Amino acid sequence: MAKNNQKMVEEITSMNEDFAKWYTDIVKKAELIEYTSVKGCMVIRPYGYAIWENIQRILDTMFKELGHENVCMPMFIPESLLNKEKDHVEGFAPEVAWVTHGGSEKLEERLCVRPTSETLFCEHYANIIQSYRDLPKLYNQWVSVVRWEKTTRPFLRSREFLWQEGHTIHATAEEAIDETERMLNCYARFCEEYLAIPVIKGKKTESDKFAGAVSTYAIEALMHDGKALQAGTSHYFGDGFAKAFDIQFTNKDNKLTYPHQTSWGVTTRLIGAIIMTHGDDNGLVLPPAVAPVQVIVIPVAQHKEGVLDKANEILSKLKDAGIRAAIDDTDNSPGWKYSQAEMKGIPVRIEIGPKDIENGACVMVTRHNREKTAVSLENSFETLVETAKQKLNEVRDGMYALALENREKKTYTCRSLDEINKTLEQNGDGFVKAMWCGDEACEDKVKEVTGVGSRCIPFEQEQIDDKCVCCGKKAKHMVLWGKAY
Amino acid sequence: MAKNNQKMVEEITSMNEDFAKWYTDIVKKAELIEYTSVKGCMVIRPYGYAIWENIQRILDTMFKELGHENVCMPMFIPESLLNKEKDHVEGFAPEVAWVTHGGSEKLEERLCVRPTSETLFCEHYANIIQSYRDLPKLYNQWVSVVRWEKTTRPFLRSREFLWQEGHTIHATAEEAIDETERMLNCYARFCEEYLAIPVIKGKKTESDKFAGAVSTYAIEALMHDGKALQAGTSHYFGDGFAKAFDIQFTNKDNKLTYPHQTSWGVTTRLIGAIIMTHGDDNGLVLPPAVAPVQVIVIPVAQHKEGVLDKANEILSKLKDAGIRAAIDDTDNSPGWKYSQAEMKGIPVRIEIGPKDIENGACVMVTRHNREKTAVSLENSFETLVETAKQKLNEVRDGMYALALENREKKTYTCRSLDEINKTLEQNGDGFVKAMWCGDEACEDKVKEVTGVGSRCIPFEQEQIDDKCVCCGKKAKHMVLWGKAY
Repeated sequence: MAKNNQKMVEEITSMNEDFAKWYTDIVKKAELIEYTSVKGCMVIRPYGYAIWENIQRILDTMFKELGHENVCMPMFIPESLLNKEKDHVEGFAPEVAWVTHGGSEKLEERLCVRPTSETLFCEHYANIIQSYRDLPKLYNQWVSVVRWEKTTRPFLRSREFLWQEGHTIHATAEEAIDETERMLNCYARFCEEYLAIPVIKGKKTESDKFAGAVSTYAIEALMHDGKALQAGTSHYFGDGFAKAFDIQFTNKDNKLTYPHQTSWGVTTRLIGAIIMTHGDDNGLVLPPAVAPVQVIVIPVAQHKEGVLDKANEILSKLKDAGIRAAIDDTDNSPGWKYSQAEMKGIPVRIEIGPKDIENGACVMVTRHNREKTAVSLENSFETLVETAKQKLNEVRDGMYALALENREKKTYTCRSLDEINKTLEQNGDGFVKAMWCGDEACEDKVKEVTGVGSRCIPFEQEQIDDKCVCCGKKAKHMVLWGKAY
Repeated sequence: MAKNNQKMVEEITSMNEDFAKWYTDIVKKAELIEYTSVKGCMVIRPYGYAIWENIQRILDTMFKELGHENVCMPMFIPESLLNKEKDHVEGFAPEVAWVTHGGSEKLEERLCVRPTSETLFCEHYANIIQSYRDLPKLYNQWVSVVRWEKTTRPFLRSREFLWQEGHTIHATAEEAIDETERMLNCYARFCEEYLAIPVIKGKKTESDKFAGAVSTYAIEALMHDGKALQAGTSHYFGDGFAKAFDIQFTNKDNKLTYPHQTSWGVTTRLIGAIIMTHGDDNGLVLPPAVAPVQVIVIPVAQHKEGVLDKANEILSKLKDAGIRAAIDDTDNSPGWKYSQAEMKGIPVRIEIGPKDIENGACVMVTRHNREKTAVSLENSFETLVETAKQKLNEVRDGMYALALENREKKTYTCRSLDEINKTLEQNGDGFVKAMWCGDEACEDKVKEVTGVGSRCIPFEQEQIDDKCVCCGKKAKHMVLWGKAY
């Protein structure tokens, strides 16, 4: 058993040895993805896709509760349509895939595979919006998009990725700004409550805005290795797209008016965030809310009489209680099964063997801290089921606390470029809080000199200093700096 | 009220006058789709997409109960990969969209946007299947695919469409054939029980098989206009793809063996089938199982005291009972609201005005037969809720009966080409049952002379005659013939 366990553990590169290799080891060994012959395009395997399905289900419910409706836009954007909003096309044209032929015929106008769908939504809005009665439209779609990236990495940066893109259009700027903030808060709540990932909400600097946006908000999370990951974004467009696409409506005073728009999205990147926030050298650690299997039952010495029966009884009681439970009744050794369950990040495992049955109990182990608890099988398994439910809640809380602790430990407050350099050299990567004058030249210089870029201007500001960390002039904001995925 | 009602009805072309126009009127007026500037690509609007979401939810549950897992393959197929299976590439290459550039760079090898994903699944199988322990794999994915069609029509034939494609791989031919049949039965059950569409199960003739398949099974439905619509297909591939893609596994006797494959799919065509099976001159008629709104509450004279309150009370009781209910409390006239509810095919509507409240009752109208029932509001609305549930069941049964009646009326048994011609001339389009010798030349001639093609060889055979309807030689099968969408 120990030997087998050892064997599995050896198969993943240790996080401290090579974080990037550790990451790709996990995505492969936990059977989340498989590579294909098209660079940057991956197969999302059943176990990986089931995580995405859980993310979808929870977020989709949240969106619908906030009044959003799902739609489906085409995947193709004619070049002339993409070209209509100047900033937008400048941002995206260099990285789109172009369809030039249908069958054997050359197309009159080439089509790009959507890198994002603002232009398609705008064309549609222009067709369906005439009056203030037609507003707001609160739309969302779950699709894949394509961006022709040079360097790619499973979940974090791929040429095709899955996401949801919300697109809304409102009669007034106020309503649209409210929506932008509401959806950022929705994402933050989702990450914290369901994924157990603490995030910092803030506004992007001008240089880091979405192509075509008036302002971009984001949530930023810190990974195990001290690098930042943007986990979701929400954009306010003002009426720029409306003007470019000639979307107008008759307002209550019977005047033609330009509406205001937003868009917001999260992607399969969230799976990358889960891996790098919670994973360890034994593999994946999954938050219970999105784990395809929440509890796995592992029979020990299952050839002995009564063991498999008891294990299956436990399984069916857990399932009846609405827990996503499974059994590993393969003929592998228990040690191998434990390793496998750890690799897959299953939040709770139950070990049940002849001795346990004799004692009228089983052993429950939580993945994130490897804590073992003996749990009674009495009361027709009622205690067991209740304990399993309670553990699943505790696991979310425990995972959040660990992630928050890691972030706090790796967040530094600095007052000079020199201090930033020394701090990062001494402690490794992390979030740096430092003041900024608002000047793009200083933002660039911080990155050039220290290697950390602006992640966002957090909503929760702290008055660390009154001078810009770079030029020493009067500071406008505290900025969160970091190296980013 | 009558005037408004009249107005709405006038807006749709009558089915008998111009069926094709009636169809496109409905897809637009019921707000299912909107056209875009890319020919053959449409926006599926919230009301249309909600129908698809219900179809997805029900089918996905059925698939998972049968042991299938969802995955997600890339949308791009390298040309060399598409070329690996000869029949398959011949069937699909003429109608694929080609990506030739990524950003400003020309790709070394062009990529097609998947028209179907057999080749991608095969590449993946080759990577992950080594031993009999790795089999079977029962996979499915919900994605969109692209086929560069010349003539297009919303839901029925579009260049991009949504579908699910199941792909499975098995150790033996028997297992794979069983799977092909199981999934065809699954589709038939779904269409009949949930969509109230009667279907005929059968096998496609050789000339009508899927490109690369050993055999193709299909379910065929008959539309209002007497034309046939293929509502779902299931293919058995034998080991042809496995050989072309070099997928082998070590069997229990330690020998390298080729596995056997299947694929099966249904598409957003099903929405077209719903429209053309159940719709009428007042608009859409939706089966309760997939209707976005199952019951709509329409307050009459809603400015009068107590009316809106009562309507909202009814609404919340219906919702509490798990019914998808909505209220139309706009300031339009009741007549306009009734027309609107009919256009959108809402299965049950509840009319509630001051007089109804006085009488302690409301009026319930079922969409498919416009039957009105007075229903008591007593017992804290318990009678009302129970009646609504019962009506929803009755509606499904009533819709199925009407559709079956239409099909029976339009199904003809013929013994000669001449009889086929006369029958269709006299009665209009429909299904023709006639015997066939199995010779492709006869199949072609029937189509040439009578205009009806082979839809399938039904599993339920009837011995109509012992001679082929075309050549008079010994008949092998009874074939179902028809004009197809």
